Amino acid sequence: MYRPEIKVIDCTVRDGGLMNKWQFTDEFVRKVYTALTEAGIDYMEIGYLSSESAFSRKEVGPWKFCAEDDIKRIIGDEEKRIKLSAMADIGRIDHDDIPMKSDSSLDMIRVACYAHQVDKGIDLAHHCIEKGYETTINVMAVSTVGLRELDEALEDLSKSKVPIIYVVDSFGSFYSEDIELLAKKYMERLPGKTIGIHCHNNQQLAFANTISAIISGINYLDASLYGIGRGAGNCTLELLTSFLKNPKFKVRPLIEAIETEILPWTEKIDWGYYIPYMVTGTMNQHPRTAMAHMESDKKNKVTEFYDQLTTATDLE
Amino acid sequence: MYRPEIKVIDCTVRDGGLMNKWQFTDEFVRKVYTALTEAGIDYMEIGYLSSESAFSRKEVGPWKFCAEDDIKRIIGDEEKRIKLSAMADIGRIDHDDIPMKSDSSLDMIRVACYAHQVDKGIDLAHHCIEKGYETTINVMAVSTVGLRELDEALEDLSKSKVPIIYVVDSFGSFYSEDIELLAKKYMERLPGKTIGIHCHNNQQLAFANTISAIISGINYLDASLYGIGRGAGNCTLELLTSFLKNPKFKVRPLIEAIETEILPWTEKIDWGYYIPYMVTGTMNQHPRTAMAHMESDKKNKVTEFYDQLTTATDLE
Repeated sequence: MYRPEIKVIDCTVRDGGLMNKWQFTDEFVRKVYTALTEAGIDYMEIGYLSSESAFSRKEVGPWKFCAEDDIKRIIGDEEKRIKLSAMADIGRIDHDDIPMKSDSSLDMIRVACYAHQVDKGIDLAHHCIEKGYETTINVMAVSTVGLRELDEALEDLSKSKVPIIYVVDSFGSFYSEDIELLAKKYMERLPGKTIGIHCHNNQQLAFANTISAIISGINYLDASLYGIGRGAGNCTLELLTSFLKNPKFKVRPLIEAIETEILPWTEKIDWGYYIPYMVTGTMNQHPRTAMAHMESDKKNKVTEFYDQLTTATDLE
Repeated sequence: MYRPEIKVIDCTVRDGGLMNKWQFTDEFVRKVYTALTEAGIDYMEIGYLSSESAFSRKEVGPWKFCAEDDIKRIIGDEEKRIKLSAMADIGRIDHDDIPMKSDSSLDMIRVACYAHQVDKGIDLAHHCIEKGYETTINVMAVSTVGLRELDEALEDLSKSKVPIIYVVDSFGSFYSEDIELLAKKYMERLPGKTIGIHCHNNQQLAFANTISAIISGINYLDASLYGIGRGAGNCTLELLTSFLKNPKFKVRPLIEAIETEILPWTEKIDWGYYIPYMVTGTMNQHPRTAMAHMESDKKNKVTEFYDQLTTATDLE
């Protein structure tokens, strides 16, 4: 029997856009939106919510901003049958640039912050709640946070009004046992709140760790079509949907969107399991060095990359 | 603390050869052999043990046979520091074609059979034991075996002299909970025997399921460089070696062999996570239809493949 509390959040455009500066065509975003709706996915995270002054539209596509006009162009006038989410990074959005919920097609704003920024994260999230949005806080890179610092952050979050708090394995370094331990800790320290999970696939564990999270009682699950996302990418939406028992989820629309929209991108950008991402994952490091290596003209020189990273660590 | 009973078996040439009819150059096999030795891997499965009358050398490479002359050409005269294994399929090797251990560089013969062939498997395995080899029986496609049939096979295996019995997820359809359940059953029904695991990556769970197997007490672990193997491939050796705590395992030689030997093959054959393999995995089907689709000129027509398979099932 399935757990009706489980909600699935697709991050195809938002996290995938980290690999191509959100240069998706309107047709791409529209087809993904339609496919996710048909597949019964609960939320589509359509991009980041940023102030227009923080980035240039000459460099990044519209889904770095999620302006209402851009969203309207995608969803049209028909009634939405999927909720829309946008992610807000601390320092890249002014409070005043966030529209009232009544003036926006967005349903949820997810605030991403590091553990040391959790007060700023709560402040921004409370502001979003006041404006009428569903809100989460996604504490990034928790694999690098010390025990005391994490406990303090969770203490602050427990006192906040934010109802949903995410475990985020930004570096793809967790094993299932880490997920179980963190799920237990988050649930103990955050009574009454819902916990979410966002995994990366550096060690081919994003789907497996999402299953571990489900078994541990986590109910908000992030995934993306064919795993498209930064570096090694995310838990794949088609595998997660196949796994979940809720009959409202359909796999076929996802397969179709992968065929027409995602497979062409596999020719242009390299997300997924590659040795440089695997190396940063096993070493619990940010994937930026691996991404730079993958974008260089020596992406298959994986031993050189391994040596660089292991030597650098030895010197620390 | 690591578990010294754990042994790692590399299947790069044997299972990878299912994707290219074992058309690996001697240099490839020699470099893999050297890398595995340097990495501290316990066994290298160098191919299949088949009678020369069962296949033509015009169609398949030498590692479909594992003749002593071929092996000698790879390993030279220096002392071996890794054990060599070959797999024997029921019906493709005559007893008389198996050399005495004293005349062979092989240390282990693994007998692959389906549950309904387990008596033949035991017969062949006993013959190998008598000739002086370490021996395992790998019961394939256990995800399709009925409860009664499996219990009967395990009963027969428990009475045999074969010391190591494998759980084989041939179709890549198991979740970790399936692995835990089967590990428990095998250990209860096969007292005194060692249990092994061989996973496929159709659902990106080969590594995760191997970890589940370790946690459940399974000690013989199959993997391959970069996961090369039939269809979606295997648990990757580099991830498994990074995970295991035994200090004898080294990752760097594996990364180097991936760079020089395996990455070139990624341009020629398609193992790994692809939608057709994912579909057969989630449907608990043999990957042959997916492999045929991937080899056709419409490999990216994944919706058509999905429809074919789901429609066929509806009619059954």
